Parts: sequence; C-alpha cells; structure tokens
Amino acid sequence: MKYCSECGEKLSLLIAENDSQPRHSCTAYGYVHYHNPNIIAGCIIEHKGKVLLCQRAIEPKIGAWTLPAGFMEIDESIEEAAVRETWEEANAKVEIDALYSVFHVAEMNQVYIIYRATLLDDNFSPGPESLEVKLFDPSEIPWDQLFYPAINDILQRFKSDLQLGVSSVYSGSSVKGDVLVVDHTFKY
Amino acid sequence: MKYCSECGEKLSLLIAENDSQPRHSCTAYGYVHYHNPNIIAGCIIEHKGKVLLCQRAIEPKIGAWTLPAGFMEIDESIEEAAVRETWEEANAKVEIDALYSVFHVAEMNQVYIIYRATLLDDNFSPGPESLEVKLFDPSEIPWDQLFYPAINDILQRFKSDLQLGVSSVYSGSSVKGDVLVVDHTFKY
Repeated sequence: MKYCSECGEKLSLLIAENDSQPRHSCTAYGYVHYHNPNIIAGCIIEHKGKVLLCQRAIEPKIGAWTLPAGFMEIDESIEEAAVRETWEEANAKVEIDALYSVFHVAEMNQVYIIYRATLLDDNFSPGPESLEVKLFDPSEIPWDQLFYPAINDILQRFKSDLQLGVSSVYSGSSVKGDVLVVDHTFKY
Repeated sequence: MKYCSECGEKLSLLIAENDSQPRHSCTAYGYVHYHNPNIIAGCIIEHKGKVLLCQRAIEPKIGAWTLPAGFMEIDESIEEAAVRETWEEANAKVEIDALYSVFHVAEMNQVYIIYRATLLDDNFSPGPESLEVKLFDPSEIPWDQLFYPAINDILQRFKSDLQLGVSSVYSGSSVKGDVLVVDHTFKY
C-alpha cells in the first residue's frame, strides 16, 4: 500500500494518537488505511458418508484438493457467501445446517468460516475455478494433496465426527505452515 | 476507492473474466482492489452472574453500551484480537473459554466473532475508547442504550443462557437496523 485510494497522494507510515502501531496514513486526505484479515466462507458437505472436495484450477497450488470456499463479499451474509462459493466452485446447490469451524490461517491473512451443509440434489461438476469435484470416502481423502494444513485438520476432525456420530464446532488458528492450534472444541 | 493504492493511477469499475460484479481495477498496474467485510473480535464476560459492558467514548454512538470488541489486526489470531480489545477498552485481563457468536452486521459491513471469556482478576476500568466500564446484572442491562440491535440480541441470548444454565453458539445476520435473523443456534 503506497498511495491514498481516496486522493492519490503518497502514504506515510504513522502511529496515530491512541493507536499501538504504524498505519498507512494520508496526511493530505487525513485518512488511515487499515489492513485487515479477509473472510473466506465455505462448506463441508457430507453426502451418503462421503465428503465433497474441489480440485483447484487456479493459483496458488493448482491441483490441490480443498473445500468449496472463497472470499465473502460485502453485499451478502456469511451463509450466503458459503452457499454461493459452493455453487461457483462445484455447481452444487446446498442448504446450510450449522456452523462448523472458525479458524485463522496466519500465513494467508485469512479467517475461514465453514458451515456443515447438505446437497439439495445429486448434481455437481467443476466450476471455472475447479479442475474436478468429487465425493471422497473418508478413507480415500488425498491427504498429501490437500490445499494446506488447516484443510487436513478440518477433514481429520470431520472424519472423526462421522465415525463417532457427533457434530462439533471449533475456533482455532493455523500458524507457520504445518502447526495447527485448535482450541475451544465442543461436541454435541 | 478512487486511486490505485499500488501506483496512484485512477481506478476503473470493470468486471473481470470469471467474475460476477464490477470491481475497482487498475488498468495501469493490472490489479483488482477488492472490498471485503471486516472482522470485529470481542468478548462476552460473565462475572459473578453479571456481564461486563463498555460505554463508548468514540463515534459512532458515543454513550452507547456495548461488548468490548474491535477490529482484528493482521498479525494476531481471532482469540488474541478479542483478548487485546478487552484489555484496550476495559483494562480487563481475560481468558477465552469458547466461541459464542459469529454474526454479520450488514449495515456496518462487519462480521463479529465473539468469545465467552473469564476475568483473570477483579480489575477493570475505562480504556481510551470507553467512558465507563461496568458489570451489569442481566435485569439491569440498559437495553435502550445499547450500541445496535445485534448487541441487544446477543445479550438477550446470554441472559437466557444464564437463566437456563446452558451454553450456546450461533451464526447469524443482522440486517436493516432492527431486524435480526439468527440461524443455527445450538445449546450444550
């Protein structure tokens, strides 16, 4: 961030009164440009004992498998974003069941908000950002080809929940690549 | 958003290939500037049957009561942001217990992520952004002086949870001022 998006002037790194850290500030326009984490909304979908995954057709990590998920827009709810992203990436119509995971991926500057969801029919196929969309039996999940460690973790937990016949919700953080800290899990 | 924050050139509203809506785009720099919702992290703190609220010393709505909460930064987890904001606004040291609420406030373009938390000692006092910090018995909450309808809703639910002796978690949306849609609540 180098220029003010409101007036085009060069930005300075300044610490405002009552603030704790330097921010990109426009002295001409008098505006502080904050840089905040982005929200990724998506779905974890179980269908007849299998889980739906999408193979990425876009960077980063083309070919990696992941949940249908993407950036939340400003004109929709979190649930609407999760349903829309599932439609765009997997051409799958789903209904939200419950909140499943809220986790911060530090190295991506993203907060994932993932819902359990149910397919409304048997149809799905790759959208423009997916190479393939497939239902995987938990024993057949391509663990070494997943998008990044937090996706491994959520799928391991989902597999365990399916085996135990429970649901759960958690909030946690994925930091420094393959270290995942999961806190505050509870089952119901 | 009028100028490219990377090169200072004027932005155009363009629809990219595979995108569904116009975005502020820099044709010189070849960059699309997305506008995404912000995350507000905070705590709902019960102490000896009372709930801790802060009276706002800053705009908007100076004098309104609300939960200690604020913008998540890019260099911290959601839980760290909730603990930090509670320290900054209420000079209160807390420990996170569990996720409590994830809700989108459409008119603010914000997603609130609120944790149940416990005071680590009896000390609290107004930080620079608060006029007053106080523990309220649920029967004494100033319902007509709360920050906005979603705060009323979370406090009504917390009051009900305390009476029933249960915990709960939900995901929902607050839209158009005083209409609150709450979905996917479960108790444990």
